[in-house]
Amino acid sequence: MNDTFLKACRGEKTEYTPVWIMRQAGRYLPQYLEVRGRGKGTFLDLCKDPARCTEVTLQPVDFFNMDAAILFSDILIPMEPMGMNLEFHEGRGPVFTDPIRSRKDVEALVIPDPEATMPFVMETIKLLRAELKVPLIGFSGAPFTLATYLIEGGSSKVFLETKKMMFQAPELYHNLLQKITDCTSLYLQAQAKAGAQTLQIFDSWAGILAPVDYARFALPYVQSIINDLRKVTDVPIIYFANNGSTLIEHTMTAGADVLGLDWRINIKKAIARVGDHVVQGNLDPIALFLPEEDLKQRIKQLLEDAREAKGHIFNLGHGVVPQTPPDQVRITVDAVHEFSARA
Amino acid sequence: MNDTFLKACRGEKTEYTPVWIMRQAGRYLPQYLEVRGRGKGTFLDLCKDPARCTEVTLQPVDFFNMDAAILFSDILIPMEPMGMNLEFHEGRGPVFTDPIRSRKDVEALVIPDPEATMPFVMETIKLLRAELKVPLIGFSGAPFTLATYLIEGGSSKVFLETKKMMFQAPELYHNLLQKITDCTSLYLQAQAKAGAQTLQIFDSWAGILAPVDYARFALPYVQSIINDLRKVTDVPIIYFANNGSTLIEHTMTAGADVLGLDWRINIKKAIARVGDHVVQGNLDPIALFLPEEDLKQRIKQLLEDAREAKGHIFNLGHGVVPQTPPDQVRITVDAVHEFSARA
Repeated sequence: MNDTFLKACRGEKTEYTPVWIMRQAGRYLPQYLEVRGRGKGTFLDLCKDPARCTEVTLQPVDFFNMDAAILFSDILIPMEPMGMNLEFHEGRGPVFTDPIRSRKDVEALVIPDPEATMPFVMETIKLLRAELKVPLIGFSGAPFTLATYLIEGGSSKVFLETKKMMFQAPELYHNLLQKITDCTSLYLQAQAKAGAQTLQIFDSWAGILAPVDYARFALPYVQSIINDLRKVTDVPIIYFANNGSTLIEHTMTAGADVLGLDWRINIKKAIARVGDHVVQGNLDPIALFLPEEDLKQRIKQLLEDAREAKGHIFNLGHGVVPQTPPDQVRITVDAVHEFSARA
Repeated sequence: MNDTFLKACRGEKTEYTPVWIMRQAGRYLPQYLEVRGRGKGTFLDLCKDPARCTEVTLQPVDFFNMDAAILFSDILIPMEPMGMNLEFHEGRGPVFTDPIRSRKDVEALVIPDPEATMPFVMETIKLLRAELKVPLIGFSGAPFTLATYLIEGGSSKVFLETKKMMFQAPELYHNLLQKITDCTSLYLQAQAKAGAQTLQIFDSWAGILAPVDYARFALPYVQSIINDLRKVTDVPIIYFANNGSTLIEHTMTAGADVLGLDWRINIKKAIARVGDHVVQGNLDPIALFLPEEDLKQRIKQLLEDAREAKGHIFNLGHGVVPQTPPDQVRITVDAVHEFSARA
């Protein structure tokens, strides 16, 4: 068992800097595409098939010597048992055919029992734990990020409907967020119970909020989830507020052990602001298109810039893009291991 | 002549905080849509029609008592005489049908004479100066932002092609950026000569760059343009690097008088970092959907947070969205004027 990643999460000394990559199980891998195509199902069908989820989760760990695996799933999965109709449209991303706009819509949402409604997730976690020699990360979306999809009906550019609900119907917004929070809280607890050894909360859209709105309309729900988790599990918790450099003074209070950082901030400057937190990040995903020597040089610099951190988990600052040559991922992981090895 | 805006740009004491709004002449105004529809032309046709450009530029100034007017145009206008075929597709935004990818593509680009190739812009500026009782802002895109459109062929999500050119063909990238810089430099000089009293450089996509890449691949071209401008004109220069909170230590060195701020950063924290710069911003455009009293409260707070600035020009943190009720713009401008009036 390689527990370097877990040690780093806890701020303990490690022999080298552990590395994993957001979306490491994904479309840049031909072997993923092969499994994805097998059975002719949709992306959602894949997410609900424990055998195939296990297979694609293991692929990058085996191929590239990653220090952690992350459950193959999607942050929107628990929104289906809440009562939402979810579809994935090619080139357009996730679509909720009936977005949440009214009190009636919010009242119709249920708080699902994760074991009963998403047994495939717990089954995947168990299958993975039996196979893995590195720690397994479970995850969820953060309530604000999940709410944007429910309210907008999918991805958005200016998040007009979400902010309108915040600003014009704050009670309705709160009731919606509270339901999503309750659902997410139970969902993450179930993942930990099933065997997830770390939990990451993805707040992919936090960065579209002014700090004053983030503090009121996003942060409290994350704090609530983490607070609940601490009562039942001691697994490390990672919170990733994407594009959140101006929110650090708030995200610091979320209660997480590790703060994820996107690539827009110099990691050294971020570390000076995160207090007693381990950091995770933050190479630009497109930096994987640098020529090999330049890529290595950039990784070396990033590792040096992160030396004063309480702990550092190397990652990209966002998900790896589908066009990435797999060999560049190999170079990256090897370079992190090589350059960070403590003498 | 109301020169409050110009005084604020120069860091001089003003009787109140001047205000204008990005995209203030635009689709949220029924009167704009009326002019836009008149003549059945395209958006590009409107941009090339001095009479109608003048009309739509004046509308918000007259309706809402704005302290500055901004030339109605588009940052991509000078890309056409450079040799690019530009189209605007409904719902998809700007499209360059033949994106720049090769040395041949870059070599084919020309540095246009702005007066000869864009006489409609200079004509609009002259018509506006004859009408306006407030200062006129001219503008351009920043070279990096313009390059993203040329290389991607339009808007983008991860800017893969742009970054690939930077990382894999830095010389080609530099040659392209140098040509865009030369074009933009002449274009802004011509606007000042025609009568523009302030120049704003929009770096709409600066925020997708890691600071290390911004410093190398975006900032030097802005510095070059501003340096050239200083030799021939003393009009104030505003530089707006959108989503640029982690870039402030670099944007400070661009040479501008005023730094534009997007809404993601608390203005007080930004002011503490901008040194000897006037700031412009930074209300969330969607905050215009707040109920009247909440909107006023937020404006009051923003003005208070900006009190320690060398100078403050009130603006949104990005363009006003088309769905905005015009009355909310009126409330905003009136509130800025009322709350900022020095006793």
